[in-house]
Amino acid sequence: MRAVIFDGRLRFLKVFPEPEIPSGWALIRVLKTGICKTDIEITRGYKNFKGVLGHEFVGVVEQCHDPDWVQKRVVGEINVGCGECEQCANELERHCPRRRVLGIVDLNGCMADYCVLPLSNLHAVPVSMVDHRAVLVEPLSAACEILEQLELTGSEQAVVLGDGRLGILCAWVLSTVLSDVTLIGHHPEKLEKGGWRTLKTAQISANRSDGADIVVEATGSGKGLVDAMSLCRPRGKIVLKSTVVSKSKMNLSSIVVNEQTLIGSRCGRFKTGLRMMESYPDMPLGRLISADYPIEQALEAFKQTTQPDTLKIVLDMTI
Amino acid sequence: MRAVIFDGRLRFLKVFPEPEIPSGWALIRVLKTGICKTDIEITRGYKNFKGVLGHEFVGVVEQCHDPDWVQKRVVGEINVGCGECEQCANELERHCPRRRVLGIVDLNGCMADYCVLPLSNLHAVPVSMVDHRAVLVEPLSAACEILEQLELTGSEQAVVLGDGRLGILCAWVLSTVLSDVTLIGHHPEKLEKGGWRTLKTAQISANRSDGADIVVEATGSGKGLVDAMSLCRPRGKIVLKSTVVSKSKMNLSSIVVNEQTLIGSRCGRFKTGLRMMESYPDMPLGRLISADYPIEQALEAFKQTTQPDTLKIVLDMTI
Repeated sequence: MRAVIFDGRLRFLKVFPEPEIPSGWALIRVLKTGICKTDIEITRGYKNFKGVLGHEFVGVVEQCHDPDWVQKRVVGEINVGCGECEQCANELERHCPRRRVLGIVDLNGCMADYCVLPLSNLHAVPVSMVDHRAVLVEPLSAACEILEQLELTGSEQAVVLGDGRLGILCAWVLSTVLSDVTLIGHHPEKLEKGGWRTLKTAQISANRSDGADIVVEATGSGKGLVDAMSLCRPRGKIVLKSTVVSKSKMNLSSIVVNEQTLIGSRCGRFKTGLRMMESYPDMPLGRLISADYPIEQALEAFKQTTQPDTLKIVLDMTI
Repeated sequence: MRAVIFDGRLRFLKVFPEPEIPSGWALIRVLKTGICKTDIEITRGYKNFKGVLGHEFVGVVEQCHDPDWVQKRVVGEINVGCGECEQCANELERHCPRRRVLGIVDLNGCMADYCVLPLSNLHAVPVSMVDHRAVLVEPLSAACEILEQLELTGSEQAVVLGDGRLGILCAWVLSTVLSDVTLIGHHPEKLEKGGWRTLKTAQISANRSDGADIVVEATGSGKGLVDAMSLCRPRGKIVLKSTVVSKSKMNLSSIVVNEQTLIGSRCGRFKTGLRMMESYPDMPLGRLISADYPIEQALEAFKQTTQPDTLKIVLDMTI
């Protein structure tokens, strides 16, 4: 099969062995797969991952022990837990210390004609949902995680820093429960695409003297956290979405002096993401997709992903 | 009056002008005053404060408009809010953006024969409480702040990093509501003094594979936060007590990947600290006091405070 792999170098391979199917797992034919910031980070050494890249997909079950699933269109949770620890028992496979993660930790990903996942990781995609929405379930679920972590009353003022894919999704998700949300970024074109419902967008944050109740940091840079601390009110909450809060120098004294709470936030439950998509059919997810590329042009697609005006790039296996 | 001041250099002055008494404020004769890590930081430039140092004290009201308070033994909240903003309206003067802080921001402190504070900042000290306990209300209240910020069920496992004054107080406070608390530090003598009730002490943390539910970081060093992240379980909570989380390099990705929550924690309400002292008369606060010095020996006392085996040094105005 065709596959995009990283083995120290990003490569497109025309011929790569099809995956074996462990008992209880499904073989999935991939239709579309999204390129994520994490994929780019992996090509820079993140997690020391070697293998087939990719963890965002929509596909069709080709083979598995349960005939009900065969030929179903599916999306798949990316964390495969050990099934034995406390985290797994609490449906928190995404925090299992021995988890494997599709295309990220110890498990070949979905940038290929086929991938495999446990049947228990799969969710059927509603017939009415187009592939271009379904392929965004993973990042939308990650954005929805914020709602699970914050106890919002509805009257909070929120600011989202970062006009990339994840920042926009976080702002949209917050807009479904809060009336006062501002998305702040540097790119006018992205900000324009970010506009939805009552969401406000701004290139520079108005320096509020009182500070926002909630600040979501989704810029992907260390500087973003510094801005978040200064935009957040005393005793306010900062949601940290950027995994690339790397080894930069940082003065965290504002967290202590202003008794702010910093909440790390990563993957979310697909059930929540799918429900959000169905509840808000007007959520303009299609706007986030900058382009579809055939898998043969994966290297070009990766390059395009790092361009400042790009939102989501999708590899389409059917073109 | 005698005073310990910082004007770019730490000095003891035999003659310093007595404070004016603003309307609604009280003139307090200081009995004892504690030296805090923050005082040391101020002598290194923190907050750019110039004036009389000190914010921990027990004293006697000498003069004020309300005769009921005169000659009362008191302790005093250190934050003086503007009285007009939302924070002040919610009894959160400690987060008022225009606050003055005794011996820290824009207000002469208590390392002198006299200091002044608004009457509304004062709390009468119960007759049965000795000065050596009362002088510790400020740091104990700061430790109690943790209980206000965390919603504990009682079954949590907690680790406190740092065997200094604040670390020990945090561990004691947590021990009043949790049965599984471990205090971790580098100094055998301090750890011995830290032992109380069911509290466990350890020089090196056992590397728990599952991680603690709560980790309190009170080491005063950037390294402490790195240790806290690795000792905390996924989705656990880290309480950050060290204000000196300075500009060191730090990788915060564990916060995101493990969805940990980092809670900044500073001053607490004196009411809570006083109540804690009365509820736990066996809390061995006296053990924290390494020595009393006369104010004339303040410079020596400050030096002693920075020694690794020292806990709390107190200046006694009556000796």
